[in-house]
Amino acid sequence: MNKNVNIKNLIIEKPLKLDCGQTINDFPLAYETYGALNEKKDNAILIFHALTGDQFVSGINPITKKDGWWSYAVGAGKAIDTDKYFVICANVIGGCMGSFGPSNTNSKTNKIYGTNFPVITINDMVNAQYNLLDFFKIEKLFAVTGGSMGGMQVLQFVSNFPNKVKVAIPIACTSSHSAQNIAFNELGRQSIMADANWTGGDYSNQNKNPDKGLSVARMAAHITYLSKNGLQEKFGRKLQERDYLKFSFDADFQIESYLRHQGSVFVDRFDANSYLYITRAMDYFDLIKEYGGNLSKAFAKTKTKFLVISFTSDWLYPTSENKEIVIALNAIGADVGFVEIESDKGHDSFLLNIPEFLDTLKDYINTSYLKN
Amino acid sequence: MNKNVNIKNLIIEKPLKLDCGQTINDFPLAYETYGALNEKKDNAILIFHALTGDQFVSGINPITKKDGWWSYAVGAGKAIDTDKYFVICANVIGGCMGSFGPSNTNSKTNKIYGTNFPVITINDMVNAQYNLLDFFKIEKLFAVTGGSMGGMQVLQFVSNFPNKVKVAIPIACTSSHSAQNIAFNELGRQSIMADANWTGGDYSNQNKNPDKGLSVARMAAHITYLSKNGLQEKFGRKLQERDYLKFSFDADFQIESYLRHQGSVFVDRFDANSYLYITRAMDYFDLIKEYGGNLSKAFAKTKTKFLVISFTSDWLYPTSENKEIVIALNAIGADVGFVEIESDKGHDSFLLNIPEFLDTLKDYINTSYLKN
Repeated sequence: MNKNVNIKNLIIEKPLKLDCGQTINDFPLAYETYGALNEKKDNAILIFHALTGDQFVSGINPITKKDGWWSYAVGAGKAIDTDKYFVICANVIGGCMGSFGPSNTNSKTNKIYGTNFPVITINDMVNAQYNLLDFFKIEKLFAVTGGSMGGMQVLQFVSNFPNKVKVAIPIACTSSHSAQNIAFNELGRQSIMADANWTGGDYSNQNKNPDKGLSVARMAAHITYLSKNGLQEKFGRKLQERDYLKFSFDADFQIESYLRHQGSVFVDRFDANSYLYITRAMDYFDLIKEYGGNLSKAFAKTKTKFLVISFTSDWLYPTSENKEIVIALNAIGADVGFVEIESDKGHDSFLLNIPEFLDTLKDYINTSYLKN
Repeated sequence: MNKNVNIKNLIIEKPLKLDCGQTINDFPLAYETYGALNEKKDNAILIFHALTGDQFVSGINPITKKDGWWSYAVGAGKAIDTDKYFVICANVIGGCMGSFGPSNTNSKTNKIYGTNFPVITINDMVNAQYNLLDFFKIEKLFAVTGGSMGGMQVLQFVSNFPNKVKVAIPIACTSSHSAQNIAFNELGRQSIMADANWTGGDYSNQNKNPDKGLSVARMAAHITYLSKNGLQEKFGRKLQERDYLKFSFDADFQIESYLRHQGSVFVDRFDANSYLYITRAMDYFDLIKEYGGNLSKAFAKTKTKFLVISFTSDWLYPTSENKEIVIALNAIGADVGFVEIESDKGHDSFLLNIPEFLDTLKDYINTSYLKN
């Protein structure tokens, strides 16, 4: 899927021991940068992407030819202002946009990994991305931020590297994947694995593609990204291009066409096995357990200041779960702010043009930088 | 799937004009009864089942060998006391437990209908079941009740037959399927249709079975039947039969095994095409639109008294949607009660042993019968 597109790759030579026990080295980490690193090297912001995101945060994504996934927030004069800050974003390992993932070829066997790829974790993802600091010779990042799985990486990064970040902004996330979160991810995985073309994960070597299963997985996830009220306001029971019911299984309602469209465009840009690996990493994420049941301990060694942001209608990672992070930080006297943004757009809110959210982000970043 | 089991069938000779325009006649309606009809024939309660329910309300279901789906509520001495009342329940048309449905053979072609079966509606379902009153020579039902899609049938039945019911108890339902409801049903349908064995709906004639697709559809639906908090309390992040992560795509978490189990047992008792047809009927349900945007008009001609019951943690048919029914009934001065039951068990609550709910049901039914 990356054919004919120039993907910037950093080859990580240093061995990385994964949580599963395997060690990897000489693997690619695909990244993009926006803006310029200043002389003091104190203006770098590392952005972590969500489940289906990639390194193309802003501008035009060269693969999809659409706007980058966080174009509302990142760019010249925007909340994360690329005229002021040096923005870095890397494709997570396990992904399918150039970083080491299951669609890569195993040089030992000359076959595509598929499900022979090692299971990775959020911890593995941020440890791989830490190499970007060495590469750019950045002693300390000004900020790390990201929404959803990006927010989980924010939390993991600060807990792994307590002296490497001045400001951390986890958005619409959680410190531990809930049973319902795991259930929806498992639904997606089962949908992919149910597709006869998945062939145990070996589809690429067999020139097959579990498009239908991946499409259904995307539809399932997409429903969880939107709120019940938001769906009702946007679609309600509006019919598709006619005034009467068709009494068939074609798409009658606009919401049906919308979901089918979301599924079908997704399979053009995403690898089914990457979907399995990344959802697995999210499900395994449990920073509370990693720190013996006390989330505060994850941040005990850091002086990083935090802003936690949630959205009122996000039922995937609701405000209550974001607040747990705030409570853990407060318990150790950390410098932490918390904002719950009013929005009926559900979990997707962090990707959308919501002025109150974008203004909050902008003000916090700019004020924090001035106090630097 | 009904092999070697004695299914009671009423053959409906009278033509039934379906909403899709087709007329059907001489079709089977499978039913069960519990208790005895008294001499005055004033003690009959018609129960409507939900999406995956059937006529086997109480006792042992002869197909699954498990308890009937509403065994907590229906039986000797229970909320719906079969020592006092004559309980009738029929399999909906479109279903797969003996009533006319897509797994029946078309006598004209000698082939199983599959998706050549006509699309049916909630209105069609209750019109078919109305024939049970003629069959049992019941002038007026004492009560109609049901949860979820059963509740929709309660509303439709009373609006179609305003003089045929004394007491109506719709539970955990809605008067109009929301965009999110449609979205989840569409997800299930797409999952079935994505299965290569579905073969355009003709799988039975080709000796195939879209088990995997149906299983994923069931998993998706099952998540919506449980609340986020209920899932967290019951499963949380508990691991399956071990203390460590497996770093694979096997079921690591108990919630994963639970969902897989729900999917796999479901395919043994349910027909994939029936799943398509019944979810379609639910999505088409819009009693508000049927009455020109004014739900009150659906009940303007009836003196039936109502009790509407909802559950606090039901996010599929939340209290707010149940209250809309109460408001519509209040607006025309109907005799209507409303109870919201505290429960963390989500939409499934109506099927479970929740004493406050069962006591409410029992008291209302018995008191209403005495006032008869």
